[in-house]
Amino acid sequence: MEKVNLAQKLTLFNDYWHPRIVGELNDSQVKLVKVQGEFVWHHHEHEDELFMVLNGRLQMQFRDKDVWLEAGEFIIVPRGVEHRPVAPEEVHLLLLEPKSTLNTGNVMDEKTAVAEWI
Amino acid sequence: MEKVNLAQKLTLFNDYWHPRIVGELNDSQVKLVKVQGEFVWHHHEHEDELFMVLNGRLQMQFRDKDVWLEAGEFIIVPRGVEHRPVAPEEVHLLLLEPKSTLNTGNVMDEKTAVAEWI
Repeated sequence: MEKVNLAQKLTLFNDYWHPRIVGELNDSQVKLVKVQGEFVWHHHEHEDELFMVLNGRLQMQFRDKDVWLEAGEFIIVPRGVEHRPVAPEEVHLLLLEPKSTLNTGNVMDEKTAVAEWI
Repeated sequence: MEKVNLAQKLTLFNDYWHPRIVGELNDSQVKLVKVQGEFVWHHHEHEDELFMVLNGRLQMQFRDKDVWLEAGEFIIVPRGVEHRPVAPEEVHLLLLEPKSTLNTGNVMDEKTAVAEWI
């Protein structure tokens, strides 16, 4: 049982769209990810996903609206809902999702990445 | 699908040790709580619990050690592990735990409180 310092963990990697695992509880994992640019449209069949902005400004695109998120804000994307994160500039995110979650959901893409523990 | 601003939600209540629900995903809930003083020793039979400090400085006491948490740090307390949060001054926490979680776990106490949505 050690504490996790988010800022310290964020110094350990610099690549985009490649989530790292920093905690696990119940059936879920806490992940950190740095993103910039446009992700792929996708959804998750069985998983709800929480995105919390730690640094920067993220646009979460849905088919019927866009939501801008700033540091200290989160959004929960329910399973089945198509979404696409877009980051005009670098953004640091905390993710909370079931262990089974793949970043690109139902889509296989060059941005598909397996999360590792840091 | 609306975003949640943590600072704004924290303006909506001022009582201590009374968690408020601000999100739900999969089998878990995201809660906010303001605390000051000493909580009761307790554990949760079936639930792992995440505590993230948003403002202030929290001491998480375990039977064999104490861990100090500052803003931007979290700790996961696995099910079955006795713990007691202590806050010499006011602390704002984000909690992540299964919907079934009662704040005082296996103990019924004057601090036992049912969380409500805000």
